[in-house]
Amino acid sequence: MTEGLPRVGPPDPVPTDRDGIVRMIRAGQERLVSIFEEIDGGTFGRHAWERPGGGGGTARVMTDGRVFERGGVNVSVVEGEDLPAEIRRAKELPEGTPFFATGISMVLHPRNPHVPAFHANFRYFEAGDRDVWWFGGGADLTPAYPIEEDVRAFHETLRGLCERHAVADHPRFKAWCDDYFTVRHRGEMRGVGGIFFDDLRPEGEGGWGAAAAFMTDGVRTLEDAYPPLVRKRLDMPWSDRERSWQLLRRGRYAEFNLVYDRGTRFGLETGGDTEAILMSLPPLVRWETRADPAPGTAEAATLPFFQPRDWTSDPIR
Amino acid sequence: MTEGLPRVGPPDPVPTDRDGIVRMIRAGQERLVSIFEEIDGGTFGRHAWERPGGGGGTARVMTDGRVFERGGVNVSVVEGEDLPAEIRRAKELPEGTPFFATGISMVLHPRNPHVPAFHANFRYFEAGDRDVWWFGGGADLTPAYPIEEDVRAFHETLRGLCERHAVADHPRFKAWCDDYFTVRHRGEMRGVGGIFFDDLRPEGEGGWGAAAAFMTDGVRTLEDAYPPLVRKRLDMPWSDRERSWQLLRRGRYAEFNLVYDRGTRFGLETGGDTEAILMSLPPLVRWETRADPAPGTAEAATLPFFQPRDWTSDPIR
Repeated sequence: MTEGLPRVGPPDPVPTDRDGIVRMIRAGQERLVSIFEEIDGGTFGRHAWERPGGGGGTARVMTDGRVFERGGVNVSVVEGEDLPAEIRRAKELPEGTPFFATGISMVLHPRNPHVPAFHANFRYFEAGDRDVWWFGGGADLTPAYPIEEDVRAFHETLRGLCERHAVADHPRFKAWCDDYFTVRHRGEMRGVGGIFFDDLRPEGEGGWGAAAAFMTDGVRTLEDAYPPLVRKRLDMPWSDRERSWQLLRRGRYAEFNLVYDRGTRFGLETGGDTEAILMSLPPLVRWETRADPAPGTAEAATLPFFQPRDWTSDPIR
Repeated sequence: MTEGLPRVGPPDPVPTDRDGIVRMIRAGQERLVSIFEEIDGGTFGRHAWERPGGGGGTARVMTDGRVFERGGVNVSVVEGEDLPAEIRRAKELPEGTPFFATGISMVLHPRNPHVPAFHANFRYFEAGDRDVWWFGGGADLTPAYPIEEDVRAFHETLRGLCERHAVADHPRFKAWCDDYFTVRHRGEMRGVGGIFFDDLRPEGEGGWGAAAAFMTDGVRTLEDAYPPLVRKRLDMPWSDRERSWQLLRRGRYAEFNLVYDRGTRFGLETGGDTEAILMSLPPLVRWETRADPAPGTAEAATLPFFQPRDWTSDPIR
């Protein structure tokens, strides 16, 4: 593992317990919302919700912004007396295992077809008497018209993040993301990937702190990964044809989320807050039958981007 | 069981074998496409497809019509050496059971928010040495702005169909439809229901013929159930606000099809023709977070229609 470049500026303090993680992601939510508001010129609404079983969250949502047709940055902090069955089984824990879960998740759907959509999520779980814990997360980019320079920059930023942390394995997390966000019935990815990881629980005495440091840096690094791409492309002019292709690609996004996304399906099946779960869906979506783009068009040129590819080694073409 | 009113005009000949069923649904496809073309003024394209394992179908699709923003009427005739595992298990049949399946299915998504969307499907299966067979089908209506008179007329027509056939149990098929088309995470139906049935295999010597007669009458009765509602409402003026509500309701439609519909999920999981499977999705869809209509609005007034209700007894209000 090579050593990634440090982020510019002083590092954030690393949480030492779960309350610290909650403070860290709340601060991250505030910063990211400010950045997105500054880019857009509009404001994110604030919706606090409570979970009947314990805990709740804060959803920050922008609808019909100048730049973001829809955007949401959510934080949740949830406690319960009984870990949901699916996780319990995967972790081989008994019924009635208490749990704690907190996370930050965001989805941005820009209006301009040349500005990519973005999704990221970082989460932390504890089960039982705090003796079982794990981290998960990821970030991925979904352009309608991928621009190679931007796709490379996005992946380079995430590779840099991973290489700053011995607990993060970039090639593995990148491949995991490519696989997770595959729309299997289309034989293509939802977008151009990024990183994805789950069940991260480094062994040894410093394991918890190392994972918490990775999560903290991960949340902060989102600022480097996505907003610069938005600023760079938000004034690009776009045509009806490009808008139409964007809406078609958003159809693939909706297909992925409703058919495959584990969080979405798990949430809907267990009676979670439907509106919060489905906030990730794009604001406007188009489906057309047999709409494969003609060879030689700008739309046909996008398709190879939606297959797994190494974006951070030397130029491929 | 009371006796339903006969359809006007001579009854269609009842198929005596599976080839007869194929002829009957092909004729139904031609008639229905002609009716929809006459209403719309446009034409349905024709796309024939073949299935690698045996058989194929004919998809008739209209895109961007004057009345139908998208419409499709499809016939498939499929044979194979190995019944798909899910059906095999449900029917307790051994691996390597050959099968035959044929059906007609249609989805119409009108542009005008005052014209309801429509879905119907009739299908026939054989497994093994033709000794195992069953019929399935149904029809359901999805208005964005339900009009009580039209909803009642639709259900009356389907009740009439069922009451003309001893093998069809309208109260049961109506309740089955209400249940099947429920968007569970929303606590509401996709539309206003209709009828749904599966595994129909009447006992006794005349069982096959009785079921085939019901299917034949069912395909023909679609002409009475839906086109009159389209003709009646297609010239109603509509506003941006009504269009916007229609697109939101279509989002629920897409949620149902991608999250719950057994045919869709089964088709995607077993590698069916994705474009044919997803042809049922609406052409344009909108999602908005926490978009519950304000009390007293026309949109709020639609919501009780999406709960199960008896539409064919005396007036409820």
